[in-house]
Amino acid sequence: MSKIAFSQLLASRWASAKSLLCVGLDPDPARFPGALKNDTSAIARFCIDIIDATADVVCAFKPQIAYFAAVGAESQLEQVCEHIRSNHSGIPIILDAKRGDIGDTAALYAREAFDRYGAHAVTVNPYLGTDSIEPFLAHGGVVVLCRTSNAGSGEFQSQLIDGVPLYQHVARTAADKWSAMGDVALVVGATYPEELREVRSLVGDMPLLVPGVGAQGGDPETVVRNGARADGAGLVVNSSRAILYASGDDHVKAAREAAIATRDALNAAR
Amino acid sequence: MSKIAFSQLLASRWASAKSLLCVGLDPDPARFPGALKNDTSAIARFCIDIIDATADVVCAFKPQIAYFAAVGAESQLEQVCEHIRSNHSGIPIILDAKRGDIGDTAALYAREAFDRYGAHAVTVNPYLGTDSIEPFLAHGGVVVLCRTSNAGSGEFQSQLIDGVPLYQHVARTAADKWSAMGDVALVVGATYPEELREVRSLVGDMPLLVPGVGAQGGDPETVVRNGARADGAGLVVNSSRAILYASGDDHVKAAREAAIATRDALNAAR
Repeated sequence: MSKIAFSQLLASRWASAKSLLCVGLDPDPARFPGALKNDTSAIARFCIDIIDATADVVCAFKPQIAYFAAVGAESQLEQVCEHIRSNHSGIPIILDAKRGDIGDTAALYAREAFDRYGAHAVTVNPYLGTDSIEPFLAHGGVVVLCRTSNAGSGEFQSQLIDGVPLYQHVARTAADKWSAMGDVALVVGATYPEELREVRSLVGDMPLLVPGVGAQGGDPETVVRNGARADGAGLVVNSSRAILYASGDDHVKAAREAAIATRDALNAAR
Repeated sequence: MSKIAFSQLLASRWASAKSLLCVGLDPDPARFPGALKNDTSAIARFCIDIIDATADVVCAFKPQIAYFAAVGAESQLEQVCEHIRSNHSGIPIILDAKRGDIGDTAALYAREAFDRYGAHAVTVNPYLGTDSIEPFLAHGGVVVLCRTSNAGSGEFQSQLIDGVPLYQHVARTAADKWSAMGDVALVVGATYPEELREVRSLVGDMPLLVPGVGAQGGDPETVVRNGARADGAGLVVNSSRAILYASGDDHVKAAREAAIATRDALNAAR
């Protein structure tokens, strides 16, 4: 593929936009404003308005495919991704799909993410091991779940193996093995700042996608202090609902203001 | 939802069809016969022909969503599932999607599987823990990945936690916790017969979905000996490529013959 690598796009955005903020595109028609409310045909329109209002403020966009798949709106997701590539071409698209399968099937999911939607990276679950991640790494950026932001994420992820929690084994494998195979990053929730610090110490300069600020309650300052690299970059800090559904008379303006405030809070801690 | 529960449908099929065989629907246009070859618009037609030719021989059908998603054929997957429900109404549909996400997003994936496609069960990845599985259990059958069939599945799944491999912790959690929350089953690959025996001993009568016979080389007799319950049922043994692409002048007839041969090989070992 001739696309610029995910990690290169990210590095450019960190430098040029001076932002660690990723806007997550989780379009929920029940929360759309005014006349758009409950209109599933307005999903692309809603997303594109948010994208155009926040593009200069972000290092990446992260569409969550479940919001589109639940209502049969895949063609609107294609439109949204195409809009980002055509109108904001330096901004990487991270397709949040949390795929995970083996062999030929993993290769088909890679085709879905990288060819059909033209994403630069896709989120992937590590439970099936390296041979399930390799088909993704061969075709684009891969953001592997390490320590997720949900309350119950420790149930398996924090279990100790040789005295070291599972999520740290995933982090070490990413650093030692997957980074030599392609363009890899990890997901670590803002809701686990101590674990974020530990993962950063294990993976060197690897990009970390950090969900969980905003509606989920993670603190931007702590995220940057514990997760940023020495150069102050290295983080893709995602906020979805707190930006998409920011309240105000003009929802697009409110989203932009929320995005600027989050970007600034992250930058203040660098 | 008013649909009959996955486990009840399965139990009925095991009894009425006397079959442990699940036909996996992995439609690859490059392998379609004759004039259908490389025709992505023929995916539903190809699947429906296989379904009608094998319905009396199976306990379940398992469409693999990646084959549809890679080429934008979601509407054909809707057609295929609708065909099974309308024309073969006692046969459970297991949507193989290996989803795994948190909170609202997991609920949207459940809506995709159970409402949009009308599946009776969906495959789910356990890495994110119980709170990621609960939204699926609330709405339909959930088949959780335990020990997958790929060569590298042991990389994380076999790591020891308190002397017990991770996949066995998943099996115990399914038996102790998830089975009280809804209709749960587990995936254990035919390529790991010893692990299949161990999982069966941990989960009582829970249904086990066993991929990996046929093209992946798992042995039907060993699968039944190690995985079946005392009553000879309890297994959903999946074969995809060895049935869909069985060679013969008439591919539909060849698929039916391959399905019958696999069903009989499984029954001979009961």
